[in-house]
Amino acid sequence: MKRWQGLVQEYKDYLPVNENTPNVTLNEGQTPLIHCDTLSEMLGINLYVKFEGANPTGSFKDRGMVMAVTKAKEDGKKVVICASTGNTSAAAAAYAARSGLKAIVVIPEGKIALGKLSQAVMYGAEIVSIDGNFDEALEIVKEVANEGGDIELVNSINPYRIEGQKTGAFEVVEQLGGHAPDVLAIPVGNAGNITAYWKGFKEFNDKHGTGLPKLFGFQAEGASPIVQNKVVKNPETVATAIRIGNPASWDKAVTALDESNGLIDSVTDEEILEAYQLLASKEGVFAEPASNASIAGLIKLHRAGKLPKDVTVTAVLTGNGLKDPDTAISLLDNPIKSLPNDKESIVKYIKGVMH
Amino acid sequence: MKRWQGLVQEYKDYLPVNENTPNVTLNEGQTPLIHCDTLSEMLGINLYVKFEGANPTGSFKDRGMVMAVTKAKEDGKKVVICASTGNTSAAAAAYAARSGLKAIVVIPEGKIALGKLSQAVMYGAEIVSIDGNFDEALEIVKEVANEGGDIELVNSINPYRIEGQKTGAFEVVEQLGGHAPDVLAIPVGNAGNITAYWKGFKEFNDKHGTGLPKLFGFQAEGASPIVQNKVVKNPETVATAIRIGNPASWDKAVTALDESNGLIDSVTDEEILEAYQLLASKEGVFAEPASNASIAGLIKLHRAGKLPKDVTVTAVLTGNGLKDPDTAISLLDNPIKSLPNDKESIVKYIKGVMH
Repeated sequence: MKRWQGLVQEYKDYLPVNENTPNVTLNEGQTPLIHCDTLSEMLGINLYVKFEGANPTGSFKDRGMVMAVTKAKEDGKKVVICASTGNTSAAAAAYAARSGLKAIVVIPEGKIALGKLSQAVMYGAEIVSIDGNFDEALEIVKEVANEGGDIELVNSINPYRIEGQKTGAFEVVEQLGGHAPDVLAIPVGNAGNITAYWKGFKEFNDKHGTGLPKLFGFQAEGASPIVQNKVVKNPETVATAIRIGNPASWDKAVTALDESNGLIDSVTDEEILEAYQLLASKEGVFAEPASNASIAGLIKLHRAGKLPKDVTVTAVLTGNGLKDPDTAISLLDNPIKSLPNDKESIVKYIKGVMH
Repeated sequence: MKRWQGLVQEYKDYLPVNENTPNVTLNEGQTPLIHCDTLSEMLGINLYVKFEGANPTGSFKDRGMVMAVTKAKEDGKKVVICASTGNTSAAAAAYAARSGLKAIVVIPEGKIALGKLSQAVMYGAEIVSIDGNFDEALEIVKEVANEGGDIELVNSINPYRIEGQKTGAFEVVEQLGGHAPDVLAIPVGNAGNITAYWKGFKEFNDKHGTGLPKLFGFQAEGASPIVQNKVVKNPETVATAIRIGNPASWDKAVTALDESNGLIDSVTDEEILEAYQLLASKEGVFAEPASNASIAGLIKLHRAGKLPKDVTVTAVLTGNGLKDPDTAISLLDNPIKSLPNDKESIVKYIKGVMH
């Protein structure tokens, strides 16, 4: 096993890297591709999950952020700024810490549980709340970054984010032995990741003839603007990481879906939570609720008789289940059985749960 | 990048594997070895951290557990049982789910926050609380497993745990280009991991001449039986994963320390929390408090002028910071700055924090 140098070094031939580009890395990427035996049998497919929760800050955001922060540093910036209440803020803060930059995270006032931000704060970010909603927070960070000077915007409109994220597709192809899966199932929120995977599959295919998957995108029903073909004013879903009403990469996602001959569909919160528990309890893989939109979507298609048989499917699991302990705990219904401290009681209990 | 097959397959030549051994894996291992530029400079050493939080359930326990559950399945067992309130229960539950076994986790009554067990419950384990303390819980699971039949004990006295865990040493050697570091710094609780690393380094050295490190073990001051050379009745530390008063692998750890010409020392909770915040904010690496005993120990030695200069040190970070959100949140002192929603205010604030 060679030491993995991190995305930017390992895939520098495919990325905007030159002799002046600094080496910024938390050795992100090279995440596990886990085969799901039980779900494969259940769904009549050959299912792998790409477990992005193994990245340094626990989500796929590290792929885009390492590239964005690397370029910010190359360009002499001293500050990275973003509007984010979740995974983006953690990734921005970690890579800023890593590279000696300051991270500023702007959030709407009064709506964010501290737990969601504890990672960013631990990584040393400054958290600023403004008197406004999330869209206004995004607007103000764009304005601040547009000032020029030494502040770089690292929200998803930063073009380097998608460059870094496309490496997920490279890894899937390599881990499958040099060919794309038949289907890539992926949660869709801001639509940057589906856009990035498609870019990655195309670039690898152009260079190495590794094939192209069909893209199956899944939105949460309460936050499904692309499925409904209209902006959702107040998106709501338990899958907070894809709770987006007006995706930044909407057009690019539609193009990717069309080009790949894919589909986009929505899944209910109930379906997402069912998949969340199923994946953990049957496969031993604990991914945050939004990640499981991809699994829920495959189950929905299967139930409707619309999932192709015997195809190889890779489902992208975007974040670690540990990112959202509250949702896990909310599902636990009195899970602890109280027993006397003697062997017979415990043996009897075990026999009970086994039969 | 080849697809990593998981520990047992990748290191089968070094593990108790035969033609009847089933393939159980969550593609654990191959965790990042991250270079720490800032801390290296601060401490006058060449410091890498082995980030075991990237394992599937977020801790190094996956290494031992994959081997223990693999062998339980090979032996026809249907149930794995352990007494655990933390990382061991999560790992046991995940690998049981993966391999179609039932996991039973026994805990002392009335002392465990549900959050600590949410992972195990999500993975489908049955949680049993008994009318007794942790030692009694451990005693009863031994008795239950000794019944014979189809129940396997997977606490640390299961000998396969150390076999799996020793692969951490193999990886460190390979990631450093085929030689052991000068020093391995490692948190010591139950002392299984320091024992396992030493076994791994010795086996690799015997076969490949890759050298041996000095072992620097660090216990939390309130749970430092090996340092004090006496059992600690009521161990207390913020580093819950090493809150052990009477380590299962005490003798083996002492032997390893002697053989390696190493040392063992203790660090206070204050020193652990200082290292915890330093590692996150200066290097972008968020590891659970116990992990940072290794960093705190290196800082302590450096301050005392006892850390060798210019040596290559690998510090083992045993678990993911996301495992313990409460400790992170407890350290946050009013971290959110409230500002008006205008560009000038934010630019002015940023200038303030930069100077």
